[in-house]
Amino acid sequence: MIEIGIVGGTGYTGVELLRLLAQHPQANVRLITSRSEAGVRVDEIFPSLRGLGPLSSLSFSDPAGSDLKACHVVFFATPHGVAMGQTRELVGAGVKIIDLAADFRLKDPALFERWYKMPHACPDLLAESVYGLPEMHRAAIAKARIVGNPGCYPTAILLGFLPLIEAGIVDPAHLIADAKSGVSGAGRKAELGLLFSEASDNFKAYNVGGHRHHPEIVQGLNGYGTEPVTVVFTPHLVPMIRGIHATLYARLTDASVDLQALFEKRYAEEPFVDVMPAGSHPETRSVRASNVCRIAVHRPQRGDIAVVLAVEDNLVKGAAGQAIQNMNLMFGLPETTGLTAPPVLP
Amino acid sequence: MIEIGIVGGTGYTGVELLRLLAQHPQANVRLITSRSEAGVRVDEIFPSLRGLGPLSSLSFSDPAGSDLKACHVVFFATPHGVAMGQTRELVGAGVKIIDLAADFRLKDPALFERWYKMPHACPDLLAESVYGLPEMHRAAIAKARIVGNPGCYPTAILLGFLPLIEAGIVDPAHLIADAKSGVSGAGRKAELGLLFSEASDNFKAYNVGGHRHHPEIVQGLNGYGTEPVTVVFTPHLVPMIRGIHATLYARLTDASVDLQALFEKRYAEEPFVDVMPAGSHPETRSVRASNVCRIAVHRPQRGDIAVVLAVEDNLVKGAAGQAIQNMNLMFGLPETTGLTAPPVLP
Amino acid sequence: MIEIGIVGGTGYTGVELLRLLAQHPQANVRLITSRSEAGVRVDEIFPSLRGLGPLSSLSFSDPAGSDLKACHVVFFATPHGVAMGQTRELVGAGVKIIDLAADFRLKDPALFERWYKMPHACPDLLAESVYGLPEMHRAAIAKARIVGNPGCYPTAILLGFLPLIEAGIVDPAHLIADAKSGVSGAGRKAELGLLFSEASDNFKAYNVGGHRHHPEIVQGLNGYGTEPVTVVFTPHLVPMIRGIHATLYARLTDASVDLQALFEKRYAEEPFVDVMPAGSHPETRSVRASNVCRIAVHRPQRGDIAVVLAVEDNLVKGAAGQAIQNMNLMFGLPETTGLTAPPVLP
Amino acid sequence: MIEIGIVGGTGYTGVELLRLLAQHPQANVRLITSRSEAGVRVDEIFPSLRGLGPLSSLSFSDPAGSDLKACHVVFFATPHGVAMGQTRELVGAGVKIIDLAADFRLKDPALFERWYKMPHACPDLLAESVYGLPEMHRAAIAKARIVGNPGCYPTAILLGFLPLIEAGIVDPAHLIADAKSGVSGAGRKAELGLLFSEASDNFKAYNVGGHRHHPEIVQGLNGYGTEPVTVVFTPHLVPMIRGIHATLYARLTDASVDLQALFEKRYAEEPFVDVMPAGSHPETRSVRASNVCRIAVHRPQRGDIAVVLAVEDNLVKGAAGQAIQNMNLMFGLPETTGLTAPPVLP
Repeated sequence: MIEIGIVGGTGYTGVELLRLLAQHPQANVRLITSRSEAGVRVDEIFPSLRGLGPLSSLSFSDPAGSDLKACHVVFFATPHGVAMGQTRELVGAGVKIIDLAADFRLKDPALFERWYKMPHACPDLLAESVYGLPEMHRAAIAKARIVGNPGCYPTAILLGFLPLIEAGIVDPAHLIADAKSGVSGAGRKAELGLLFSEASDNFKAYNVGGHRHHPEIVQGLNGYGTEPVTVVFTPHLVPMIRGIHATLYARLTDASVDLQALFEKRYAEEPFVDVMPAGSHPETRSVRASNVCRIAVHRPQRGDIAVVLAVEDNLVKGAAGQAIQNMNLMFGLPETTGLTAPPVLP
Repeated sequence: MIEIGIVGGTGYTGVELLRLLAQHPQANVRLITSRSEAGVRVDEIFPSLRGLGPLSSLSFSDPAGSDLKACHVVFFATPHGVAMGQTRELVGAGVKIIDLAADFRLKDPALFERWYKMPHACPDLLAESVYGLPEMHRAAIAKARIVGNPGCYPTAILLGFLPLIEAGIVDPAHLIADAKSGVSGAGRKAELGLLFSEASDNFKAYNVGGHRHHPEIVQGLNGYGTEPVTVVFTPHLVPMIRGIHATLYARLTDASVDLQALFEKRYAEEPFVDVMPAGSHPETRSVRASNVCRIAVHRPQRGDIAVVLAVEDNLVKGAAGQAIQNMNLMFGLPETTGLTAPPVLP
Repeated sequence: MIEIGIVGGTGYTGVELLRLLAQHPQANVRLITSRSEAGVRVDEIFPSLRGLGPLSSLSFSDPAGSDLKACHVVFFATPHGVAMGQTRELVGAGVKIIDLAADFRLKDPALFERWYKMPHACPDLLAESVYGLPEMHRAAIAKARIVGNPGCYPTAILLGFLPLIEAGIVDPAHLIADAKSGVSGAGRKAELGLLFSEASDNFKAYNVGGHRHHPEIVQGLNGYGTEPVTVVFTPHLVPMIRGIHATLYARLTDASVDLQALFEKRYAEEPFVDVMPAGSHPETRSVRASNVCRIAVHRPQRGDIAVVLAVEDNLVKGAAGQAIQNMNLMFGLPETTGLTAPPVLP
Repeated sequence: MIEIGIVGGTGYTGVELLRLLAQHPQANVRLITSRSEAGVRVDEIFPSLRGLGPLSSLSFSDPAGSDLKACHVVFFATPHGVAMGQTRELVGAGVKIIDLAADFRLKDPALFERWYKMPHACPDLLAESVYGLPEMHRAAIAKARIVGNPGCYPTAILLGFLPLIEAGIVDPAHLIADAKSGVSGAGRKAELGLLFSEASDNFKAYNVGGHRHHPEIVQGLNGYGTEPVTVVFTPHLVPMIRGIHATLYARLTDASVDLQALFEKRYAEEPFVDVMPAGSHPETRSVRASNVCRIAVHRPQRGDIAVVLAVEDNLVKGAAGQAIQNMNLMFGLPETTGLTAPPVLP
């Protein structure tokens, strides 16, 4: 059994980790911390977890008194900036780290500081850490001590763009990522704009001028050719709980490529990327509560613009599920362990 | 392995059976029929089922040419009236039957005919069949050849009223069941009233004058005392996909009873009934995609009316999950086999 | 023109007052206050109000410096306790007061203190104030200086029960009000439980043990007979923005009464109460954004329980619309002035 | 008073015409036809219209026996192909025609036939008809006998692109329109894909390979320069009832232009186009139930791609409201007559 600690367990990624780990045959959640709810039973805050055996009887512990060093792996489901403050001590004690926040996503500490308004606490550890997108960095993740789990938008957008960028068949200077997210992507925070009465029966773009996932997307797409990529990234808020739909546009520089074959080949061995048949329109609900990213590729009017549609559950492949996929890799387990429950539809 | 046939697999109970059976270690779905989609792969209609191994490569078969007799058990996820036409032949061949429609719910054939506008095809088999609410009829289900799986509303309403009725502490002549259902309870039917643009951002009662689940509820509550029960049952449509919330009212004839203790004792050994702590308000999402029914009992202002709140997922405990719970009982498996995945929240 | 002041204009009742008053031919909103948004243009907070002429160019003013005494009428769209602190000074200056909070709803100051945890600031003014349900107190409202605008739940529940109670044909000791509200009823407050990700695709009861609207409902129904009424009131939260649906149950003591005729006669002259044809099921969306309350009455199975279904828009007939209806009465205008726009459906 | 006929009144554009015309001081709806509901009162199908005076007592009449020639103007709220069959006779009788379907949108009859799979019935009348986007063709509409009311997507997309195209500052060969629509845009049709249980809590693209609004968008943008435009148009379905959000991308060929000033100048005199302040993100709910189109223009990272955000209510500015705006122009009324009610928010 893998002994697991979760730091910051009262948000949506925290409860999603618990939901998924409850189905994982090799996982034992040893402790889960929360400053605000210390001492409270987990299933009191989340009644959906009642009656699940040992997991249900867990209580949130105070971060200060929690023996994280006794764990094999610690997930940080915290705000940005928390994980990097504790990582050195924990890895020193032999604990592996998977951060679901942004502390280990951007390899350039200056870029991190610019977007997250704080200096990076451990640039040396950032340098050794691995960006936890298995479809890009599987081998490195398997050997990593520290994994920066990707953001929800970047996961879908990178998986959708990668085959085109790797093949070098699109203009890297004019990529467009029009992305739409369910409201849970904003977290479990009491903010006016996230109220049901504000977000329901409504649709809007936000942060068109700049979103923290933008540099992460650019970083992930760079380095495949000589030219740096430029991406226009437009996030939108959809009145649904879970799900991200990325609609990606790239101008083809080589119109002779069979896009369907390219995508199928790229992801042929990937357990969690499903390239759908030509002409498909993936729906977010087709991956609800599962770790799958479904992708379809189109070329409207046989023109020179490729349109990629990619869907994922932002809390699973976009957060907690991918974190567990990374854990499986880091501990030498089959990559799909604990992640095989079918999507919930309708 | 239990060899399974599903008749009528394109509705919501059909796809929910597939979702749940995909997680059942002893289940092999051998065939699934659909008149309209014969020859089409299951995962073409329901892309959520792509990539699930043998189950995904299943195709719908024509009912006429399907070898149902080779199955150990057949689930009917069909409109009312289909199962009773095939049951005699199948049970004759040693196949167990679980009907998710209404053919084997009402024990009185005349009552069946009155509400479903067709004579019952096999009153003798109806007489031997068992009403598939394990919390009422566990032993009989275990020995049954034919199980009538309860309706979604009756499941929640019976589980909520039973402790009170069995204890004989309420006026049976004035029971009130104010029940609210998500839209999936109406099935996967192209009807105007079920459109998103009609049912979203809206709330209404329907069938206040009479609903087919009414006689089923009355039947389930009768026979515990000398006086026949009378229930006013008011169904409502909620703009959500899954979930039933029953708000039940009964006048206490014995105000000295500790209601919380009564409910906790009644369901102490039940794996799928969760009596919540005193003062709780169960939410439908706390059981989303799971087989649990959560119940809370209140006595407002310490008056003489008991208020019971019961929630379930209408497609799981109210349909496909309960059917599998019944199958487990009929085949001597642990009752929770394949039904342990936690609810999906948020 | 009626010169209007609005105190506390950043909540849902505030913006709804603005939306409705923008269509009122005799209304001039002279000032609107907000402590938190003082100096900010109204249409900056609520872009839906852009381009509506003088109203759009209004800015929120600081309550301290606002000349409320220059108004003919002041609406308080504030938390409980604010209006009663300013009423004496304003009525002294000849300003009429319509409080949309609870300060002038409960006639018994002790009851107010029990439920709102603060002593009443002006019991003498409370005694002179009128409960602003025109269908009960039209004449008194027309002469009132101070109107306590009813709560959203009480409006629908009183309108539904009144014909039965006034006629003296039901058991007053066992009334049941099972009520369901859209999320906007909870106000524009940043609370976890009101988040889209918490309230969407979900249904629950709340405050079953006691809700502040309970004493208001009881007060409204008392005094019609010798026996005091007892009401069990169960509020529920519906994943929709606007709308209340009250499902009311009362035991008939006189089963010979023609309920349909009783209701039609009671509300024959009411411009904002629509008694629907026998057998109807009113939908909340059929009154969305309008001041109408639609009612249907049923007697299931010809039994002894009457079931009344009443729907309203909680922000209009349940708040801002009724407040304007009261203003029309207080200023001698036709009662429907400014309130005639049809409901928005779909 | 303008005497009005509506052909095909049971869909969402039909009921929306009734809702808006009920508020129009110069409109008298003389007759409304429906083959399927002939003889039924309008407010029986749409209870939201109960109690609105003469309009409520209207009944649907059979198209065959309806005296459309007695009207001053006839709105066709019918499937494609109906209007063109009756237009010659009606205009011959002096009746003005506003078609809310596609019969008079595409000026090229061959293009119409290709997309709508039927030959055009009256190419000569098509040639004289005017495309009813007032912001493009106001003068011609005022003199027209026949107006083809624009599609919902084209309205938002054209209004968003026009300032850029007219100014000749973008590459016309690589325009991208990523558009999102509420479900009512698909009409009041009993189709599986439009069910609440299918469309709620979900997001998907559709018709990426080709949508009937595509040629209409291209037609509207052509003719401003020497080069023909090429548009990639990707429609998506949003789980909301009303609203379209168009996110438009165009590559700037002249980066020196002040986009904000360009848009503000272009629409300075338009009563129904609201250019929001720089940096804004318009929300669909900010125009719910109103005839306004709100637009914001961005230039992310000061790069060479302009991003335009445009929102409208698909049933109002995208259909019935624009039709009434056109009627006002055709009858010499102030353009905003009957269209001034503020949006409904929340």
